[in-house]
Amino acid sequence: MHYTRTLLHPDATEPMPTLGLDSTSLSTGEKHQWSVQTRTLHGGTQEGVQVVEIDNGKLSFVVLPTRGMGIWKGNCGDVRLGWDSPVKNPVHPSYVNSQENGGIGWLRGFNEWIVRCGLSSMGAPGPDMIVDNNGNALEAFLPLHGNIANLPAHTLSLEITDSEIILRGEVDETMLFGPALRLQTEIRTAFGSGALEIVDTVTNLGNNPTEHELLYHVNYGSPLLEEGASFQAPFKQTAPRDPRAAEGVENYNQYDAPSPGFVEQAYFFELAGKRGSRESLAMLKNGKGDHASLLRFSLKDFPCFTLWKNTGGSADGYVTGLEPSTAYPNTRNFERTKGRVLELAGGESRTTKLVVESLDTKKAIATAEKEIKALQKTAKGTVHPHPISKFSDI
Amino acid sequence: MHYTRTLLHPDATEPMPTLGLDSTSLSTGEKHQWSVQTRTLHGGTQEGVQVVEIDNGKLSFVVLPTRGMGIWKGNCGDVRLGWDSPVKNPVHPSYVNSQENGGIGWLRGFNEWIVRCGLSSMGAPGPDMIVDNNGNALEAFLPLHGNIANLPAHTLSLEITDSEIILRGEVDETMLFGPALRLQTEIRTAFGSGALEIVDTVTNLGNNPTEHELLYHVNYGSPLLEEGASFQAPFKQTAPRDPRAAEGVENYNQYDAPSPGFVEQAYFFELAGKRGSRESLAMLKNGKGDHASLLRFSLKDFPCFTLWKNTGGSADGYVTGLEPSTAYPNTRNFERTKGRVLELAGGESRTTKLVVESLDTKKAIATAEKEIKALQKTAKGTVHPHPISKFSDI
Amino acid sequence: MHYTRTLLHPDATEPMPTLGLDSTSLSTGEKHQWSVQTRTLHGGTQEGVQVVEIDNGKLSFVVLPTRGMGIWKGNCGDVRLGWDSPVKNPVHPSYVNSQENGGIGWLRGFNEWIVRCGLSSMGAPGPDMIVDNNGNALEAFLPLHGNIANLPAHTLSLEITDSEIILRGEVDETMLFGPALRLQTEIRTAFGSGALEIVDTVTNLGNNPTEHELLYHVNYGSPLLEEGASFQAPFKQTAPRDPRAAEGVENYNQYDAPSPGFVEQAYFFELAGKRGSRESLAMLKNGKGDHASLLRFSLKDFPCFTLWKNTGGSADGYVTGLEPSTAYPNTRNFERTKGRVLELAGGESRTTKLVVESLDTKKAIATAEKEIKALQKTAKGTVHPHPISKFSDI
Repeated sequence: MHYTRTLLHPDATEPMPTLGLDSTSLSTGEKHQWSVQTRTLHGGTQEGVQVVEIDNGKLSFVVLPTRGMGIWKGNCGDVRLGWDSPVKNPVHPSYVNSQENGGIGWLRGFNEWIVRCGLSSMGAPGPDMIVDNNGNALEAFLPLHGNIANLPAHTLSLEITDSEIILRGEVDETMLFGPALRLQTEIRTAFGSGALEIVDTVTNLGNNPTEHELLYHVNYGSPLLEEGASFQAPFKQTAPRDPRAAEGVENYNQYDAPSPGFVEQAYFFELAGKRGSRESLAMLKNGKGDHASLLRFSLKDFPCFTLWKNTGGSADGYVTGLEPSTAYPNTRNFERTKGRVLELAGGESRTTKLVVESLDTKKAIATAEKEIKALQKTAKGTVHPHPISKFSDI
Repeated sequence: MHYTRTLLHPDATEPMPTLGLDSTSLSTGEKHQWSVQTRTLHGGTQEGVQVVEIDNGKLSFVVLPTRGMGIWKGNCGDVRLGWDSPVKNPVHPSYVNSQENGGIGWLRGFNEWIVRCGLSSMGAPGPDMIVDNNGNALEAFLPLHGNIANLPAHTLSLEITDSEIILRGEVDETMLFGPALRLQTEIRTAFGSGALEIVDTVTNLGNNPTEHELLYHVNYGSPLLEEGASFQAPFKQTAPRDPRAAEGVENYNQYDAPSPGFVEQAYFFELAGKRGSRESLAMLKNGKGDHASLLRFSLKDFPCFTLWKNTGGSADGYVTGLEPSTAYPNTRNFERTKGRVLELAGGESRTTKLVVESLDTKKAIATAEKEIKALQKTAKGTVHPHPISKFSDI
Repeated sequence: MHYTRTLLHPDATEPMPTLGLDSTSLSTGEKHQWSVQTRTLHGGTQEGVQVVEIDNGKLSFVVLPTRGMGIWKGNCGDVRLGWDSPVKNPVHPSYVNSQENGGIGWLRGFNEWIVRCGLSSMGAPGPDMIVDNNGNALEAFLPLHGNIANLPAHTLSLEITDSEIILRGEVDETMLFGPALRLQTEIRTAFGSGALEIVDTVTNLGNNPTEHELLYHVNYGSPLLEEGASFQAPFKQTAPRDPRAAEGVENYNQYDAPSPGFVEQAYFFELAGKRGSRESLAMLKNGKGDHASLLRFSLKDFPCFTLWKNTGGSADGYVTGLEPSTAYPNTRNFERTKGRVLELAGGESRTTKLVVESLDTKKAIATAEKEIKALQKTAKGTVHPHPISKFSDI
């Protein structure tokens, strides 16, 4: 069995088709009750947002081509993957002005389980110098988390084989005189698996070198996040981002119940990875310890990692973020001074991989914990009580 | 007879239906030739704007779900309700950047008969302090009249009973770390009536207290506004907003013919209301005195009132605004210093009512005038010749 | 034969029709294989962009009603008219925030062969004083090249006669208290001709005088632009815009091959025109000298002319622009000090004409060159080595 279908293409004369494929309509030889559906949302700020709903028979999730191929939400068995943002539905980019409110307009559309930040810049809003059309330095205000989440895919295609479902999309972040970056993403999931794999290639379409930043904001609310939930990852060192985070450093890896008025705390990590491959992992485990979400990635791809704890009221966005990235989510200007902003040469591509897996047995969780502990033995695991100048602008 | 129909809903798989209901298709037992139609506008900046046209047999008006459930225009008998803005058609929010031109971008979409300003802020553009994701103070620039007019309803439903037509809509103004306010509006009109009633509930969806401002910008051009037209309302005191308005204070309640180059004048009122209910009213009467539009509301809901006179050239927007509100339309920052910015606790709702009625007989007008005069007897009716510090930032 | 059809209108109840007309379906008595097609683009930032593809049998081009009636690209025989921008497809205005990146957000949508800049302002971004609703001076930041390219036509109609195809469109750039300008464009092309004619009328819809600027950005990449390509126009004087352009002044009218890293150079011209009519012309000729594009216009309409050379890498936008205009593309504030910003009285209209013709024989090119040389004899042809204060803010 091999099914392929182009869903969006710049030369298409029709809108994205409304598609309903499943294990009955298209036999894959798999016993799983899989399905793939596409549709366009209506009403309010979600008018016109295109979604692709993928269910591999165990794990289901909703991809948002209109919002940079982010993943809105998912489910694995009974476990909801995602969180409850005050923003209820996927927001069409035309309703997001990233420049507003001092550059934090991105937050008007933020409710995804997995959302990319980048491609040209990400992290805290702030001024930076860009080069204008006259070759002169021009001060530009770079908004929170960049543009990629608010740019739609111009190409989208689906492939279904005997073993997996693959959705591919392309998103361009381009302008004359500006960065011309293309994201080609491949979201893969095997039938009956609890995991999805995001293989992203970012290409500098231009002739000149250009800067590049990429962060995956992988976010969880209830039920994985709850009182007693915990975070684990092997690390060389970690430090609070700022004095506010320092207040919670002793319990940086533990979570409380929703606490209205709680102000977010973020911790920057230098993780430990396997020799050679530099493969690493990070896990969020629920309070009972029978469900977890595990991220796997290479530190070659993502040398930086941030843990975001935002355990405010349940109506305010009770959420934690596990964030592998190319740099820390400070201003790009600061990250440049630390040598952490990537540069892609003209025509250069960079491919990265992130696997997100749902663990639903204590045994699977124990195996992951064993792996984390083994890696931790190779690294010091220093927890700095205060922000450090390597990570934060102090 | 009881007809209900959901027109927009976040889970809908189809766009808003194109609906045509009338007294023939759906008998209400009423003898009036009523109708309700829905459609989507095309061409230019109105592409994709959804409208609901309601005609109760006497009064007709057009609601704009895509523009925050504002009311574009109306007609009662021969009398047009609304005005001629240089902006000719309803503008899709994606064409409005409220931040542009020093924060007055809202004016690119302003042409409604009745438009809400708010929900988080309204009034003059200006800087204000908000709290950022780190709990720090962040200076944000609040644009003219806030966001609500440029946010679409995500839920819309129609109810028709034996006596009236009711349109309900929900509009969310939310962001992570920002205000999470929901407007639930109910626009009601009885068959054969010259009045419509707007019952609005604003709810703080979040856990933390949040600020809230609301103003109804109810606007009239020709034929109600004309040379010799006049304004009446019972008041304790009124003052010009600024020196420019002070120039016209002697004729603050009288209108001239269109005068190209005329610069707007605004007067702030503390109205008088009935004991207990605090019900009050305000009226615009045409030159001949045979047609008027009357607003009824409680000062508990709207303690502030502004009269906006903008009698410039007929092609420039010859218009006057009657504006009941929770605060005066100064910057939110200034209104806060005067204690006039509302705060909604987490989960708290606030319901208000505004009735707008067309009067088309001298008798009906005389009755309203009598009511105004009776209330005026309970209050001083001071007309300040200059701006006062209670109302204006002088 | 006379065919007329309204394609867009504010009162239309349906979206723009998908139209396919050609010499078979509609006999014009012409032997040319002409066609006119309309469609709506899908996928990515082009979702919802409406296009009109016109082919007169020799020259074909694509008009973008959604982007201010600009012309995306064309073909005359084998010769492509247009260029390769890093921005690949027509961008819906809802994805362009002109205020971003220090006011150069316009560049996110810039990939047209012919695009208008204006109507209220054009040229370099910068602060300027506008009048606010209170009659006070308000500092506004005017973005690069104004609004017209990111405003959609609200009216669009097609006329086909025995000799030509005419597409008409109307675009409004209006706001309360702001300029209320209407563009009425007529794009005409005769069957079998290599030329198109753009007849534009800009009207001040308001009662008060308002400023107006208009520039046609006519852009060419390969094949017309190539190593050895050259520019010709009769002129009184020309000067580099800035020190960077001064570096290339000796070869200001010659082009090099794509040079990654090349920083743009612009030259401001005072052209020479015929006595009385003030008709002038400007030509871009390819390296071999057998293909050219010729612009014809009156200096009464467009007293200013800019040559933009941006011969960077082929993936970065290898392009040159020939730009007839009402003022030079400096900030409007600077142009005002030089008396070059037009003012339209209330209700006043201004009609201009621009003809763009493809020349595909050496003979036709020689004829045009002869005409240029004849006009050059009437003028000094001074080439200033450095920017001059008449043209540039030095």
